[in-house]
Amino acid sequence: MALLVQKFGGSSVADADRMRNVADYIARVRRRGDQPVVVVSAMGHETDDLLDVAAKVSRTMPGREMDMLITAGERKAMALLCMALHDLGVPADSFTGSQAGILTNGEHTKAKIVEMRPDRLTKTIAAGRVPVVGGAQGVSLEKEVTFLGRGGSDTTAVALAKALQADACELYTDVPGVFSADPRVVPSARRLARVSYEEMLEMNAAGCPKPAMRSVEFARTHRVRLHVRSSFTWQPGTWVQEEGDPMEQPIVSAVVSDQSQAKLTVAGVPDHPGVAARLFRALADKLINLDMIEQNVSLHGTTDISFTVPHDDLAAAKEVVSSLEAEIGATGLYADPDIATVSIVGAGMKTHPGVSATMFEVLAAEGINIEMISTSAIRLTCVVRASAADRAVVALHKTFGLEGEEVH
Amino acid sequence: MALLVQKFGGSSVADADRMRNVADYIARVRRRGDQPVVVVSAMGHETDDLLDVAAKVSRTMPGREMDMLITAGERKAMALLCMALHDLGVPADSFTGSQAGILTNGEHTKAKIVEMRPDRLTKTIAAGRVPVVGGAQGVSLEKEVTFLGRGGSDTTAVALAKALQADACELYTDVPGVFSADPRVVPSARRLARVSYEEMLEMNAAGCPKPAMRSVEFARTHRVRLHVRSSFTWQPGTWVQEEGDPMEQPIVSAVVSDQSQAKLTVAGVPDHPGVAARLFRALADKLINLDMIEQNVSLHGTTDISFTVPHDDLAAAKEVVSSLEAEIGATGLYADPDIATVSIVGAGMKTHPGVSATMFEVLAAEGINIEMISTSAIRLTCVVRASAADRAVVALHKTFGLEGEEVH
Repeated sequence: MALLVQKFGGSSVADADRMRNVADYIARVRRRGDQPVVVVSAMGHETDDLLDVAAKVSRTMPGREMDMLITAGERKAMALLCMALHDLGVPADSFTGSQAGILTNGEHTKAKIVEMRPDRLTKTIAAGRVPVVGGAQGVSLEKEVTFLGRGGSDTTAVALAKALQADACELYTDVPGVFSADPRVVPSARRLARVSYEEMLEMNAAGCPKPAMRSVEFARTHRVRLHVRSSFTWQPGTWVQEEGDPMEQPIVSAVVSDQSQAKLTVAGVPDHPGVAARLFRALADKLINLDMIEQNVSLHGTTDISFTVPHDDLAAAKEVVSSLEAEIGATGLYADPDIATVSIVGAGMKTHPGVSATMFEVLAAEGINIEMISTSAIRLTCVVRASAADRAVVALHKTFGLEGEEVH
Repeated sequence: MALLVQKFGGSSVADADRMRNVADYIARVRRRGDQPVVVVSAMGHETDDLLDVAAKVSRTMPGREMDMLITAGERKAMALLCMALHDLGVPADSFTGSQAGILTNGEHTKAKIVEMRPDRLTKTIAAGRVPVVGGAQGVSLEKEVTFLGRGGSDTTAVALAKALQADACELYTDVPGVFSADPRVVPSARRLARVSYEEMLEMNAAGCPKPAMRSVEFARTHRVRLHVRSSFTWQPGTWVQEEGDPMEQPIVSAVVSDQSQAKLTVAGVPDHPGVAARLFRALADKLINLDMIEQNVSLHGTTDISFTVPHDDLAAAKEVVSSLEAEIGATGLYADPDIATVSIVGAGMKTHPGVSATMFEVLAAEGINIEMISTSAIRLTCVVRASAADRAVVALHKTFGLEGEEVH
């Protein structure tokens, strides 16, 4: 008997039919002798709908009340899923984050888990019942309802898998797993049977949205095996787990692109110590997320600093830089929203130094100009024109031999 | 400074505009120096919507999960109302039934309050903030989320008014108060400035749906003054309170009609002891609510027993009676769905014995046949044809002098 934490995302329980499908699946898992512990997200677009109504009622949207509001979505879903399970003769009980013993700090709208006390879940399992936990929610030490943020249901699932010493944490979603490239861009992209935590994190950072980066980090820290899979086909998906024998690692596992970033260049900055620190501290104080940062070689005592920020933060970032322009002695500020990042990720890159040269050759052969470069041990990212991104992905995916049959 | 528990029903917070209107009103109450403690129902038809989706997902609809589901509606409303209050600069915090210290028994879908521990509310008030409590919900001693049933928000408000020793409990709704008759039937019906708890209970029993009977009973037991009033006009409504000087009581305060009942007659029952007991015990076991019961005078050793039941329970009641027909020796069973009850209610009836005669004369003058009669100290009810009900109400309302200007 395996103890399996099974998390079902919003699309998996979007309506009554899908909710009953999920219940039927859980009943089958139980019949084959495994013990499911279920985590469920809000149905379909419910979280967005709740945010919409909040925006209609309030400008200030205080965090404590937003958390109370948003967590209502998961409560509905978990109660309905339990009802559907009862119909199938499966004894099941729903639990709020608080009832499930998920203790968080008091940082509303993006609370962090500080302790797990899943006593009620353990008792429920011992009684032969299926616990169904509302995703992305907890309770603070001050007994306030807290929300873990968007994608927080994955975090709930991983934290429960760790706390209950589950055999695996299955994240059910509307795609069959993690792919070697976005199948909308590369139709021949294949599902990856396995990726390492590190590869998954690099893919997250490079623009792959699922599973949520935070849950992968948590899984890596606590060595929880993740299985990303489909609640539409129910077939095996992608295991995210510890890296295997490095000799057996593919050099490149996936090609990932991200068009959500814009580039800002601060030109003619005096090449003095402390200038970059002043600039990036000011941006950090405004909670602006930077991704890539590049500082050109100084030739005439001045330098250019480029960095990428999410499109949503572009206006705020421009404002911060403008306000500092005189102080840091910059001569110009250029914003470029039409960029994309293209990344290759692979655990085998560590032991294969020629990979970056190959990537640059592929882009050159396609006539694609590289505007910035950033590297990690197992990732290589280039900034290119947004219009060239898909072409770059297709060419890289082919060159690194990622097409073809699925590998198990 | 008055401490006022203010309960806003679903129609009062049906959409973002109305929600903001309510927030604006609460801000004004606070500015004039009073301390509001707010109880809020789910928005508009949300509770019905939740019941609909539950019916789509599940046939069994287990009580524990139904309570978890339904209470999500009030959570949304209370969080949104707090956000709207924050926008107006009014510090406000939302509280679930559990957080508000409303302890109930474990009877899901219709839990009863067993203890009030409103410590967090007291602290919130002391901190100069406005507590906003989700209506109709509590927590059982087993830490399960419980729902107090439809209309339970009124109960929450009255229980809080008692526990916090509030100066009054204001029930805001979509009508301006309690009327001398249904204004849709009697356009000249007037709002009652005051009714006694006992009158209100008799009016509830006779078919007046608001405020919920259970909350009136609770208010009567704990001597909490209720003020039923409008969240659309914000004008004073009807006080429900202790009976004043009986000499000053109007003989008849209101005429109430109810078309939700059907009549069942069990004919030719042997006039033996225990027959009625056997019959009504069997009906009670099926949780069928009986209202009026009448047993005709026995002439030939047999008798007819008539009683009224809600239309919804008619089929079940017929089944129970049919199964007993042989055992109790009845000769026939007649169901009549086309009836209505017409009642007059007034605290002054206790001291004015001629009222029933007047009522019978009015109905006779209108050519309306009386099919059953039931009385209490302050209520007189007649069963008539459903088609004659409105005519009876109009005539009684006029004869007992209830038309005209509002009385304050």
